[in-house]
Amino acid sequence: MGKVRIHMMMSLDGYVAGTNQRVDAPFGDGAEHFLDWVFKQRSFNALFGKEGGETGPTDDVMRETMEGLGAQILGRHMFGGGTGEWPEPAWDGWWGPNPPYHTPVFVVTHHPRQPLVMEGGTTFYFVTDGIESALRQAKDVAGDLDVRIGGGGQIADEYLRAGLVDELELHIVPWIMGDGVRLFAGLGDARPRLEQIRSVAGAEVTHLTYRIVR
Amino acid sequence: MGKVRIHMMMSLDGYVAGTNQRVDAPFGDGAEHFLDWVFKQRSFNALFGKEGGETGPTDDVMRETMEGLGAQILGRHMFGGGTGEWPEPAWDGWWGPNPPYHTPVFVVTHHPRQPLVMEGGTTFYFVTDGIESALRQAKDVAGDLDVRIGGGGQIADEYLRAGLVDELELHIVPWIMGDGVRLFAGLGDARPRLEQIRSVAGAEVTHLTYRIVR
Repeated sequence: MGKVRIHMMMSLDGYVAGTNQRVDAPFGDGAEHFLDWVFKQRSFNALFGKEGGETGPTDDVMRETMEGLGAQILGRHMFGGGTGEWPEPAWDGWWGPNPPYHTPVFVVTHHPRQPLVMEGGTTFYFVTDGIESALRQAKDVAGDLDVRIGGGGQIADEYLRAGLVDELELHIVPWIMGDGVRLFAGLGDARPRLEQIRSVAGAEVTHLTYRIVR
Repeated sequence: MGKVRIHMMMSLDGYVAGTNQRVDAPFGDGAEHFLDWVFKQRSFNALFGKEGGETGPTDDVMRETMEGLGAQILGRHMFGGGTGEWPEPAWDGWWGPNPPYHTPVFVVTHHPRQPLVMEGGTTFYFVTDGIESALRQAKDVAGDLDVRIGGGGQIADEYLRAGLVDELELHIVPWIMGDGVRLFAGLGDARPRLEQIRSVAGAEVTHLTYRIVR
């Protein structure tokens, strides 16, 4: 059985998005330079079928996090470019015809919809009966490979609260968001115990991996 | 002229202390294992004149952050063991007769008090006319050496808001505090721009140093 991994970038003050998320600003206001480092990476370009970009520890980590994946899970905000209110059925996500997933992707939403087959191996499945169902379906198709929860913050917190996560991969960005969507918000007594299992210094950001201690 | 450095440990969710800070629990509730890593270090023992402890990257970083210091600044909560309401003049801080500072320490407070000379080179000066006065006095005695702002979170944020900090040294602890005192809270338009200048992987925590970009 593969692992269940959350994979997100986080500002130094604990936010994964700013305020007022919308399709033309999926990370919202206050996030102006939050993503600069990722757009430069060779592995990021490769996800979209492009050449070129920076190499180094950050590029290595970003490529590794996409390896060994059998399925992925997204919240409706992540699929909807931060809005969670994507117009259906015309909305195909905000990544274009060839999204950077290249696996089955289970989108947790309240809106039933037929599966959406994209280019490059990505198929979006829309799951309306909750996070546990989405994870069960993802594990079924992933088999011995890992399931990656790609965000946003709300669904990541729901999976943490439910105790369904094995590893947490965070890219700590030298950016103070100030306001917006915080990770680990309102977990209360369900806040996980963590053990640092990897720490990689990139040129601009730091990549931290934690094991959730049961 | 030396640098002005903030030096603090921070939970992965952005807190520097929990709730309900008090003298017998200066980091408050929710911080049970927040400090475990630091108590083990050889450099921590050495600050209290003791032998033994772990060595390695974390110990190296902790020792380096105490080098090259000419003066230090604390908020009243830090001096008061988290309470900010220390009984005067009997209260001599919560570190015992030989505090782990070994330089002049300027405590920003509303309560005037004569300087308090401790063992091991630590003298506490009580500054009642604000953070800029405390920094001016600290720089005067530090000369070419650095001034270290040792916390707590409130005074660190006040110095950040005033644009008076050169570097930020944070120890990222694999701990979810959930509630309490957050760093970078309420900075609004004064939130600093940061550049990662060092990232050191310790066995249990990660040590990040940022330059404040002017």
